[in-house]
Amino acid sequence: MKTDVEIAQAAKMEHIEKIAAQLDLDADDLELYGKYKAKLSINTWNKIKDNKNGKLILVTAINPTPAGEGKTTTSIGLGDALHSLGKKAALALREPSLGPCFGIKGGAAGGGYAQVVPMEDINLHFTGDFHAITSAHNLLAAVLDNHLQQGNQLDIDVRRVTWKRVVDLNDRALRNIICGLGGKAHGVPRETGFDITVASELMAILCLASDLQDAKERIGRIVVAYNHAGQPVHADDLNVTGALTLLLKDAIKPNLVQSLEKTPAFIHGGPFANIAHGCNSVMATKHALKLADYVVTEAGFGADLGAEKFMDIKCRFAGLEPDAVVIVATVRALKMHGGLSKQELAKQDLKALAAGMENLAKHIENINQFGLPAVIAINKFPTDTDEEIAFLEEECQKMGAQFSLSTVYSDGSKGALDLAEKVIKAADAPSKMKLIYSDDMSVQDKIAAIATKIYGADSVEYTKAAEKSIAEINEFGFSNMPVCMAKTQYSLSDDMAKLGRPTGFKITIREIRLCAGAGFIVALTGNVLTMPGLPKKPAAENMDIDINGKITGLF
Amino acid sequence: MKTDVEIAQAAKMEHIEKIAAQLDLDADDLELYGKYKAKLSINTWNKIKDNKNGKLILVTAINPTPAGEGKTTTSIGLGDALHSLGKKAALALREPSLGPCFGIKGGAAGGGYAQVVPMEDINLHFTGDFHAITSAHNLLAAVLDNHLQQGNQLDIDVRRVTWKRVVDLNDRALRNIICGLGGKAHGVPRETGFDITVASELMAILCLASDLQDAKERIGRIVVAYNHAGQPVHADDLNVTGALTLLLKDAIKPNLVQSLEKTPAFIHGGPFANIAHGCNSVMATKHALKLADYVVTEAGFGADLGAEKFMDIKCRFAGLEPDAVVIVATVRALKMHGGLSKQELAKQDLKALAAGMENLAKHIENINQFGLPAVIAINKFPTDTDEEIAFLEEECQKMGAQFSLSTVYSDGSKGALDLAEKVIKAADAPSKMKLIYSDDMSVQDKIAAIATKIYGADSVEYTKAAEKSIAEINEFGFSNMPVCMAKTQYSLSDDMAKLGRPTGFKITIREIRLCAGAGFIVALTGNVLTMPGLPKKPAAENMDIDINGKITGLF
Repeated sequence: MKTDVEIAQAAKMEHIEKIAAQLDLDADDLELYGKYKAKLSINTWNKIKDNKNGKLILVTAINPTPAGEGKTTTSIGLGDALHSLGKKAALALREPSLGPCFGIKGGAAGGGYAQVVPMEDINLHFTGDFHAITSAHNLLAAVLDNHLQQGNQLDIDVRRVTWKRVVDLNDRALRNIICGLGGKAHGVPRETGFDITVASELMAILCLASDLQDAKERIGRIVVAYNHAGQPVHADDLNVTGALTLLLKDAIKPNLVQSLEKTPAFIHGGPFANIAHGCNSVMATKHALKLADYVVTEAGFGADLGAEKFMDIKCRFAGLEPDAVVIVATVRALKMHGGLSKQELAKQDLKALAAGMENLAKHIENINQFGLPAVIAINKFPTDTDEEIAFLEEECQKMGAQFSLSTVYSDGSKGALDLAEKVIKAADAPSKMKLIYSDDMSVQDKIAAIATKIYGADSVEYTKAAEKSIAEINEFGFSNMPVCMAKTQYSLSDDMAKLGRPTGFKITIREIRLCAGAGFIVALTGNVLTMPGLPKKPAAENMDIDINGKITGLF
Repeated sequence: MKTDVEIAQAAKMEHIEKIAAQLDLDADDLELYGKYKAKLSINTWNKIKDNKNGKLILVTAINPTPAGEGKTTTSIGLGDALHSLGKKAALALREPSLGPCFGIKGGAAGGGYAQVVPMEDINLHFTGDFHAITSAHNLLAAVLDNHLQQGNQLDIDVRRVTWKRVVDLNDRALRNIICGLGGKAHGVPRETGFDITVASELMAILCLASDLQDAKERIGRIVVAYNHAGQPVHADDLNVTGALTLLLKDAIKPNLVQSLEKTPAFIHGGPFANIAHGCNSVMATKHALKLADYVVTEAGFGADLGAEKFMDIKCRFAGLEPDAVVIVATVRALKMHGGLSKQELAKQDLKALAAGMENLAKHIENINQFGLPAVIAINKFPTDTDEEIAFLEEECQKMGAQFSLSTVYSDGSKGALDLAEKVIKAADAPSKMKLIYSDDMSVQDKIAAIATKIYGADSVEYTKAAEKSIAEINEFGFSNMPVCMAKTQYSLSDDMAKLGRPTGFKITIREIRLCAGAGFIVALTGNVLTMPGLPKKPAAENMDIDINGKITGLF
């Protein structure tokens, strides 16, 4: 089989106007970025807002393992399968970040015969959304430091500046810096650091905003620091809400591209899935729902983090409701959850699979707790045996979940026709999403609801620092916000070593961060790195572009 | 009269395909960025490369004063005037930087009725070129710091890392930082800092490269640090030349927009005019010359810096030759050069004007030294008297320079018809550009040639540090490169207080920097700030975007 990049580069793309025409969009609805990328015009919403919504299909997964699940690949393949069945289908996915692309990961736009294209552009600068966020984020930081330099009228405590800077790169040397050195003319010395752009609160805002005006209001509410009296200082206090919004005026418009099988794909926004909510933009999802009958979207990490936040944060804010949820798993990954090492995955092991199935079972239960039907998509590998597959199918049926094998990586849409049929059936059945907690619950009760109902924890403990932060949040009147959990993605618990379905554990909340602009409270169960590092041999070393513009090494 | 932003926002733009059609470009030659911006396809060059070159008109100026000259505005108005006379004309200008836009300056796209549009886009992210440069620059820095972290196989001396990081913002608190703090997992602590993106050597490379392959070769030659043996370490040694080039694959394509009067305008690249050469890209100029009969371009600062570097660096590398040079001046600015303060400029003062005329006279002489005819464009202000104008005209005629009044700010092309006629005549006369120094001269002789012939200095002195750097450059075999002077723009000398035409002065070279990638040696006569700061009340505070997307405060 060809490599991902060979498949992507061999693709014969349609002009994006033709792709848009599938959704009854015309040239006036598009702002072209070359022939194969476009942003939706800001005026399109008024034209489509009274359309009936299509069905929303959320693709999520078991807790990820080094064996891989293929969630994005399955999402794209499912979209293509719906498309090939003659449905008016669209994808709504996250934009990849530039940083990891040069690190270990290479590009991120699906894989095999289930990819979105133009792959190189999507993985590099795309339509500049992340660069706009980087600029706006850093302008706010520059204005804040300038405020300190020019007399500090707001009485900001330099030890309590929470707004850092960002770059869309993996750059560990910027995690912790001292800025403002060099004497009186060059700023006020203080400790600070850089996060990767996807960790910016502006990214979360862009992805949760219903429109530019909503984004502007959220930007104004960002807490950038605390003053010496302990009161929060907001972006609005620095008088640059307008300038920051201006910088995001194009970034907020959803991007349209296509899959290899010419399914329209909205790729827009990409917040971190730990300290943020990990879903593509509300605007992309809402536009897609007005334009297509079936919209396939995904959430970051496993269902305990991704799907939970999709419902409790994104759907809560946007008034959205999925009609069906696909949980992606692999036999290999489930066997790892059942105790095997990565080296042992090639041989049949029904016992390990049965133990690992408990992880999937908990996620099925969780989706049902949200009031939604779960369809299990097993991303098939050559080493999977018939007995292993049969066992899984039986277990899923016992739980009332639909079961389907997917081979989209090697077969494209043909590899997910059965999955698509089952998803259509599940989405057509009546369902009613139930959130796990309500706005008016206390911060602690919200966290307890997630920890006990979704993770299966016995209880929640707090560090002193976390308790103090919650008290502050209550004092400042932010306690009605939803909670965004930052927890290891590898386990249902907060201990990454506990695979399968751990029981009898406590969740420890070590730190609480306020994202008053995005509108959520981040609860951290451990140390989350918001700036990745590069490996010994970065992927960047393999990349090249030749005299004819042909790119190599991006995957 | 309406404000600049009101004029720009009221403009009825043509679809960029129609603008391109004026230059016999069709849809296949363009990569659209919305309806009013496009990049030229990389394949267009092969189609046009055998066309006859049009005439190249360089617009430069006297030494700038706080009274203002209006060089970009005059350039645009001149282009419009040539266009309105039925000539196939095009503009080739620099892209504005995002940083100053939020600081003191506001936007930069001409003024009054001589502007390029869409003004907001050009001033904000435009087509993402600067963001691409920022990303590539910082990737190289991240890879370098990662190399230090992963064992430092190249034996880089952390005290001699010359490659800093960049942001396209005015952010003085980043001028001097310590990075790599926080312990073993977070990089190697060292002193470094950030420049503004326009000061990046990658910006100079993008603007001097003849194509992507040439850019790639220059990128590989960048010196990022020295090892403990004192030998230079190049970008190529870090194995990321390909990745950096990949990030610039779109940025290198010239951008096409339009003026208010629908003259095609290539706006591409914008390197600093002190530590770099300050001209738009060679690729934009070369494409424009193949497509138009008259190409109006500009160089940064006054003619002593801008025009000199235009000839001795840009033209030398690109094999270009201007056919005529326009020197922009104002009566007000010349009176400042003659000793008046900004408050005294409104009243007639022929004596001050005569003294200030010496500054213009030296620039006329300098242009003639390059073997080129000078056309003087006086950007007329309401306070200019007939006697003042008559005096200037007579003085210019004495020197054999054409003279014209320009009122493009209030009148658009109509305000430069006479200027256009004179420029056509000057450009049609045979001329042969002579460079001020040859490649094989020593670094000191090159600097002496510029200082004595162009600045009018008696001699050049060097600090010990500068002498040591020159010795190193000679040792490493880089001495055949042209010299890029970093000197105050306000005076012909290296003392910004010496206005008019100073004599009897020495130039002191305090520091020498090697830009082996861009291909020039920077000679600094003083402390050049490569990261601006924000003022007490940044322009950003006045900016806003309303619910209908209408932008205010950008100018």
